[in-house]
Amino acid sequence: MVRVAIIGGSGYTGLELIRLLVRHPGVDLTAVTSREYNGKPVSLAFPALAGVCHLTFSWPDPDRLAGAADLFFVALPHKTAMAVIPSLLEAGGKVVDLSADFRFRDRKVYEEWYQEHTAPELLAEAVYGLPELYREEIKRARLVGNPGCYPTSVILGLAPLLHAGLIESQGIIADCKSGASGAGRGVSLSTLYCEVNEGFRAYKIAEHRHTPEMEQELGRLAGLPLKITFTPHLVPMNRGILATLYTVLQGPLEEQEIAAVFEQFYRGAPFIRLCPPEILPNTAAVRGSNYCDLAWRLDQRTGRLIVVSAIDNLTRGASGQAVHNMNLMLGFPETQGLEVVPFLP
Amino acid sequence: MVRVAIIGGSGYTGLELIRLLVRHPGVDLTAVTSREYNGKPVSLAFPALAGVCHLTFSWPDPDRLAGAADLFFVALPHKTAMAVIPSLLEAGGKVVDLSADFRFRDRKVYEEWYQEHTAPELLAEAVYGLPELYREEIKRARLVGNPGCYPTSVILGLAPLLHAGLIESQGIIADCKSGASGAGRGVSLSTLYCEVNEGFRAYKIAEHRHTPEMEQELGRLAGLPLKITFTPHLVPMNRGILATLYTVLQGPLEEQEIAAVFEQFYRGAPFIRLCPPEILPNTAAVRGSNYCDLAWRLDQRTGRLIVVSAIDNLTRGASGQAVHNMNLMLGFPETQGLEVVPFLP
Amino acid sequence: MVRVAIIGGSGYTGLELIRLLVRHPGVDLTAVTSREYNGKPVSLAFPALAGVCHLTFSWPDPDRLAGAADLFFVALPHKTAMAVIPSLLEAGGKVVDLSADFRFRDRKVYEEWYQEHTAPELLAEAVYGLPELYREEIKRARLVGNPGCYPTSVILGLAPLLHAGLIESQGIIADCKSGASGAGRGVSLSTLYCEVNEGFRAYKIAEHRHTPEMEQELGRLAGLPLKITFTPHLVPMNRGILATLYTVLQGPLEEQEIAAVFEQFYRGAPFIRLCPPEILPNTAAVRGSNYCDLAWRLDQRTGRLIVVSAIDNLTRGASGQAVHNMNLMLGFPETQGLEVVPFLP
Amino acid sequence: MVRVAIIGGSGYTGLELIRLLVRHPGVDLTAVTSREYNGKPVSLAFPALAGVCHLTFSWPDPDRLAGAADLFFVALPHKTAMAVIPSLLEAGGKVVDLSADFRFRDRKVYEEWYQEHTAPELLAEAVYGLPELYREEIKRARLVGNPGCYPTSVILGLAPLLHAGLIESQGIIADCKSGASGAGRGVSLSTLYCEVNEGFRAYKIAEHRHTPEMEQELGRLAGLPLKITFTPHLVPMNRGILATLYTVLQGPLEEQEIAAVFEQFYRGAPFIRLCPPEILPNTAAVRGSNYCDLAWRLDQRTGRLIVVSAIDNLTRGASGQAVHNMNLMLGFPETQGLEVVPFLP
Repeated sequence: MVRVAIIGGSGYTGLELIRLLVRHPGVDLTAVTSREYNGKPVSLAFPALAGVCHLTFSWPDPDRLAGAADLFFVALPHKTAMAVIPSLLEAGGKVVDLSADFRFRDRKVYEEWYQEHTAPELLAEAVYGLPELYREEIKRARLVGNPGCYPTSVILGLAPLLHAGLIESQGIIADCKSGASGAGRGVSLSTLYCEVNEGFRAYKIAEHRHTPEMEQELGRLAGLPLKITFTPHLVPMNRGILATLYTVLQGPLEEQEIAAVFEQFYRGAPFIRLCPPEILPNTAAVRGSNYCDLAWRLDQRTGRLIVVSAIDNLTRGASGQAVHNMNLMLGFPETQGLEVVPFLP
Repeated sequence: MVRVAIIGGSGYTGLELIRLLVRHPGVDLTAVTSREYNGKPVSLAFPALAGVCHLTFSWPDPDRLAGAADLFFVALPHKTAMAVIPSLLEAGGKVVDLSADFRFRDRKVYEEWYQEHTAPELLAEAVYGLPELYREEIKRARLVGNPGCYPTSVILGLAPLLHAGLIESQGIIADCKSGASGAGRGVSLSTLYCEVNEGFRAYKIAEHRHTPEMEQELGRLAGLPLKITFTPHLVPMNRGILATLYTVLQGPLEEQEIAAVFEQFYRGAPFIRLCPPEILPNTAAVRGSNYCDLAWRLDQRTGRLIVVSAIDNLTRGASGQAVHNMNLMLGFPETQGLEVVPFLP
Repeated sequence: MVRVAIIGGSGYTGLELIRLLVRHPGVDLTAVTSREYNGKPVSLAFPALAGVCHLTFSWPDPDRLAGAADLFFVALPHKTAMAVIPSLLEAGGKVVDLSADFRFRDRKVYEEWYQEHTAPELLAEAVYGLPELYREEIKRARLVGNPGCYPTSVILGLAPLLHAGLIESQGIIADCKSGASGAGRGVSLSTLYCEVNEGFRAYKIAEHRHTPEMEQELGRLAGLPLKITFTPHLVPMNRGILATLYTVLQGPLEEQEIAAVFEQFYRGAPFIRLCPPEILPNTAAVRGSNYCDLAWRLDQRTGRLIVVSAIDNLTRGASGQAVHNMNLMLGFPETQGLEVVPFLP
Repeated sequence: MVRVAIIGGSGYTGLELIRLLVRHPGVDLTAVTSREYNGKPVSLAFPALAGVCHLTFSWPDPDRLAGAADLFFVALPHKTAMAVIPSLLEAGGKVVDLSADFRFRDRKVYEEWYQEHTAPELLAEAVYGLPELYREEIKRARLVGNPGCYPTSVILGLAPLLHAGLIESQGIIADCKSGASGAGRGVSLSTLYCEVNEGFRAYKIAEHRHTPEMEQELGRLAGLPLKITFTPHLVPMNRGILATLYTVLQGPLEEQEIAAVFEQFYRGAPFIRLCPPEILPNTAAVRGSNYCDLAWRLDQRTGRLIVVSAIDNLTRGASGQAVHNMNLMLGFPETQGLEVVPFLP
């Protein structure tokens, strides 16, 4: 049994990590930290976990943590994450960081959209934790930057097409819709029940910080820098992201050629489901699972190819993907602990 | 008091018409028909209307109806609508038709997307009931084809820009999200509570029948035929449509020039609200009202102009707009009976 | 036009007061105060009110307020309310207080469940603002203590039965379920969207502060002191309270005798709707309105009479009732400004 | 591997059985029947199950089924269930019946509330499948009548108290609230999204068919016949039942005596969680799991003991409990396949 710990375990991604890790047969969850709940049993803070998790939240003391686990999930806000990660690595631990701090290759891009980077020496070795793109690198990594929820949904939908050079790399639009858990468990007026329920809105149009992350990875797939138009929206539901992706074909294509490109690219990827022709992705069909469901439609009238992807933002968009990365880093079977049946209805 | 009747009053748009018309000071609602509820008091079928509406649902007998009202709201499915409307007009009535049957100028377009048109002789005189575009024509009309919900949200968002020639007329994308009442009150598996709740999905990508309606009106505004990419989505909420509209500017533009174009175009339009710079439209902010809230953002990085519009699909997208049209047709003050404060929370 | 002001207008009951008062033909809303939004236009804080309310939030300065209106709605938390009300009255204003501060006849009861009362000299003249019980007293009142939301739903359901002596006065159970707006617009973890959505729970069992308010009024109706068992629950919806009330009949009774008692008691009450036999109350059927829907069922097997009432907690349970009280205090027609059709769906 | 089959697998309880059985290490799911989806792959009817369940729905032909499995879950409507079960038993199969057909010891009670019983000879051997009450009998059973969802929530809340003789057996009230999946996946107006969402209502007051089932089991625990007042309500959420149970103590009791009785009664019961004093049950905390969360409060003012229980109606209230029963019948570890962490948020 490998010992793992969660740094910052009282938010929704922390909770989701606990849900997955307590049932993972290969690991022993030894610590969950929380400044807010320090000293409180996990099952008192989250009665759903009574009888399931017998830990008590502890203070995120780096020294004590260093010896407590072999691999750390860091579920802290960005900036706070890069403050604690170097010491964890130094003490010999492996790290999956769920913040944005180690997702960027180019320090300048990070600093333009976030703030000064305080551990830039680690950027070169950090691997972007999207297993469908970097499976081998992740296996060898000491530090994985777990992708953002929106970027996961967008990159998985476009990767086969850009990699195969089927679509124009410029002018892509990602119209994304997320459930409310994406806003986190922090207390704010805008995420109160009555402020979210029975409403639908866009936010941070053309200025959301997940944009450069998408551009970094899509640009690598395309083989040249690209810019994307990204609009996030808030859906009155707990979980799920649906991404509707608008692209322009480079030339005329048959449906089956597109299908072949997707099948080829995702051959052997256990968490990608290509929808049969009569089905379109629905966030409800992936709820609680690590699946990404994908479909596409050719709009013959306008020459556009529209791709739709659906993920659970907390599982595939955060904690499930983090466990997937852990499985690769520790040499476990890729799907271990993630064979969760989507939760319906 | 002008006598008005609702043909097909047991669906959500019929209900919404009753809600608005029973409080309209200029009209007397004399009849509401329903084959299903024929003979049943409205207040028994809809307990919410007890003490509010004292009518009993009647059979839609055209002969009896002809004399019962001076203006008819036809809230029937397309095809059924055009079967009853000619006789209502012949008997001297005015008609606001909420179906698609009289929205198209070109019979061929209608027949390509719907079915054979059985009253094509009326198409020339029918007016497309979007008051911001056709106020004067509506005032003189005998027959108004009330716009579809999605087209209302899309056309209002793009009209000023196309009219002013600021954006490319080709390549427009309308990514629209609608609450579940848009699917109607008909019984089906896909609209059951547990099938809609906690899920989000696209449907009828690049094949929804509201597409040609948008293209007809946007093409007229642009002065040339155009094609649009339209994707509808289903949001787990009762009411509301948010349209996120992606356009390409014809040339560099300042924010204030765009603002000026919108302000100019909608000067004096009582149901258009241009959001101040710090606000983005939210369907919750227009709920139950006839408002269309509009905002736009320039994505300087990609040269796109993104417009967002929000309406209540049952009010502005159907019955409220129908009452607005009635006000114009009957010479009432434009906002009469529609001064409803958005319902929050 | 009578000038009215809202003290504490940035919560949900404040918002609901604005919604109703801006459309009330007899009053002029001259001021809305908010410490938090002081100086901010109402339409910026609440974009739903753009074009509807042209006021700017002001600081609750008692001196300036005193001259600004003839009647004040105080929508402040308890304790804060009784600190400002005396000066408003002194300056000649009338007051409808939506807090608990002036609902109790017996200072000791208030102090046992809340805290020390700082304006006890006003308790004797304050009228409990349930118009079905105190219509005449309210007409003459200078200060009305507007009832709590739960007590409104419970008292209206039981008043006819206790008044007629049909049920045992001891042993009554009120099992009440409220939408999330009842918790207010204050920011807290327990009212975040993801904490409320898809969950259902009881809270403050046998210790909720609305209990003594119910007991005061029910005891007066019964003619002797009584105790009630009250359990509140939180429903994942914005608005509405359903109260399921369990009583024991004093002796055998026919359905029609019960019906007669309800009809007699509520004769001429414009906001009470007694459901026909085949209908049970649904909070959705009263949404946004001032109605209270009532029904009852005899459980012949156990000898119990079960009464069900439904109200909108923000309208009938707070702001709508406050406007009703204002209408009575100012001599307006009782239903003026409250002829809102329930909002469905 | 024991072969199991689901008869009637296209409803919500069928879906939930599939979710649990495909991950159960001891069984092989060999067939799922559905008249409606006969011949359709499960993963096409339910895209959520793509990659998870590779079966195709088959016709419920009793002859072919008989040899296909060793144990059958019958998830058919009552009446239909008892028509197929005898032949399954005859062919040597074991049966867990999720309908009401084999829950009653007394044929007359069944026939009074349902209809004529067509397999009364099996009633004597059928075991009521509530493991906390009948663990040993279930282990030896050939036919288990799986409890109803409401009765599960009510009986588990009251069993320790009635068994210990602490409460009056007469006059108990069960005020229960259920999510919409309890109404099944059948298509009807009353379960449409817009008819359920943002509403709350009671239904079938004092006449719901789960009443006699509660009375049968509670009466056995009390040692004498009893009657209960039962009111079901519909909550706008997918899953969950909360039961608020009102009882009268037989005499004065300390909190800790009550706690001791619950702890004693449920010692070793792996799916019962007694909440710590500061926690009250929430359906969200048991979602997707087989747990029943229990708490109680003494209302010292009225002498009542109020018990609250929370279950997931589809898991503990139907399919999870059915799998629990299967585990007992087949000699598997009691919790096998049911170690699901509650799904939050």
